[in-house]
Amino acid sequence: MELKAYLENRRGLVEDCLAGLLPQQGPLAGHYAALRYSLMAGGKRVRPLLAIAAAEALGGDVTAAMPTVCALECIHTYSLIHDDLPAMDDDDLRRGKPTNHKVFGEAEAILAGDGLLTLAFELLAGPDAAPGLDAADRLRIVHLVAVAAGSSGMVGGQSLDLAAEGRQITLDGLRRIHRCKTGALITASVQTGAILGRADQVQFARLTEYGDAIGLAFQMKDDLLNVEGDAALMGKAVGTDAEHRKATYPALLGIEESRRQLAATVDAAIASLADFDAKADPLRELALYILNRRR
Amino acid sequence: MELKAYLENRRGLVEDCLAGLLPQQGPLAGHYAALRYSLMAGGKRVRPLLAIAAAEALGGDVTAAMPTVCALECIHTYSLIHDDLPAMDDDDLRRGKPTNHKVFGEAEAILAGDGLLTLAFELLAGPDAAPGLDAADRLRIVHLVAVAAGSSGMVGGQSLDLAAEGRQITLDGLRRIHRCKTGALITASVQTGAILGRADQVQFARLTEYGDAIGLAFQMKDDLLNVEGDAALMGKAVGTDAEHRKATYPALLGIEESRRQLAATVDAAIASLADFDAKADPLRELALYILNRRR
Repeated sequence: MELKAYLENRRGLVEDCLAGLLPQQGPLAGHYAALRYSLMAGGKRVRPLLAIAAAEALGGDVTAAMPTVCALECIHTYSLIHDDLPAMDDDDLRRGKPTNHKVFGEAEAILAGDGLLTLAFELLAGPDAAPGLDAADRLRIVHLVAVAAGSSGMVGGQSLDLAAEGRQITLDGLRRIHRCKTGALITASVQTGAILGRADQVQFARLTEYGDAIGLAFQMKDDLLNVEGDAALMGKAVGTDAEHRKATYPALLGIEESRRQLAATVDAAIASLADFDAKADPLRELALYILNRRR
Repeated sequence: MELKAYLENRRGLVEDCLAGLLPQQGPLAGHYAALRYSLMAGGKRVRPLLAIAAAEALGGDVTAAMPTVCALECIHTYSLIHDDLPAMDDDDLRRGKPTNHKVFGEAEAILAGDGLLTLAFELLAGPDAAPGLDAADRLRIVHLVAVAAGSSGMVGGQSLDLAAEGRQITLDGLRRIHRCKTGALITASVQTGAILGRADQVQFARLTEYGDAIGLAFQMKDDLLNVEGDAALMGKAVGTDAEHRKATYPALLGIEESRRQLAATVDAAIASLADFDAKADPLRELALYILNRRR
């Protein structure tokens, strides 16, 4: 229960920082309203929380580095806006609300995504991004986040995903898509926290293993929720993957085996934290949260 | 004529670097083909050339910093791909070739833009970006480029531009749109070069003035070319601004007055280089090129 309170507290810090990012007045108020609509739509904030928990697992203090961890949420939100577009997954509902392009139109939704992606790098490189962290480490964060978000990561994963729709793919192919599309930014979030917490090389490697495992677990759970989740709780339609004949873990492995692999992957994530003390409990808790979440 | 050869040489360096950026094989070959199609479509490379010429005006050597200056072209190219989309300006032709979405489809065109924007930051923050430049200066470049490309710059300018279509706007309103949409990244390109060339504060301020002036001049010339340019030379339709009832300099000021203000703005750009020696001649030449270009 204490850990729940910890996570709620950290989530509050993230919400406060995000809420202050976008100007509400001026000639661009209409544009910023489109960014704010999706950024403040009640996301789970998994990526910022992972970065914070990773830094704190190493004894780091991230209260001053909130712009850096919020940049990760900007990138995640941009990817949802663009993925929902009519030309992409054509989704009408996200987190229980009409998708960005349904409210602001396609042009503004494209620009809102572009704006959030660019804002992320403005935040990461900004003078207030992570006071105390030296410039070389901040540059390292910019680079690893860009690699994870770009064509060899998230963007490429979405391209592979679109190309795979309605086609037979192997489990290896599915894993590649997910490693790019979801896993890369989740791992990068944990690595960002690791750098903020001044990880040494071994710690960085362990935390990367943890990030890779929970990134995979996150997508397995997403696939399972699309089969057996509660649409009302999730704020979006379920069963859509089967409808689009998308390759998913349940489709390739069956539900039982997918559940078994999910649990094993979460175990592996927690095992990679074996050398960390109780300060890593929030990371362990987040792994269990991913296993048990209902949305 | 010597300066022409200089510019051709530098443009060759840019082309070589751009050509090597994108992998041609692997599971993402199809995705990268969409990026390459627009990136290698024969752009004028104005932004990289401005960065190179600004650095060299200060005696800097930029041959090792090509990834940094090429990042500017990646951002420019992404903005063209997204601006051309059906939901935005809905253009079929760009540089004499079908636009990206006409060839690769809307979904891949959105992703190609996203990929190029993200690649820019990967390049700017990468280990090979600008050897010899310290991390703090490289971070400064990332930040100023992100600000110029984002919601308070290029992205915001496109949003203002879309909102203004078919509506009466003032000359001040037009200037704001252009300062954001085109000017910001052009100024940022000159500033990137200034940092690469280790400008002191005064030099940085002068080069910023130069960048602001040619950014404005560039857009004035674009507007004029849309009225009186040669479609075959330009590789795209002319007269489209009047057709869309877009606010432009010729529409607001008339052709003669627009030409006069363009010439005065180019003069002002050149005047801001008064304290620079002959090493700034390429910058002066680029200002004249913007004045006299036919595409």
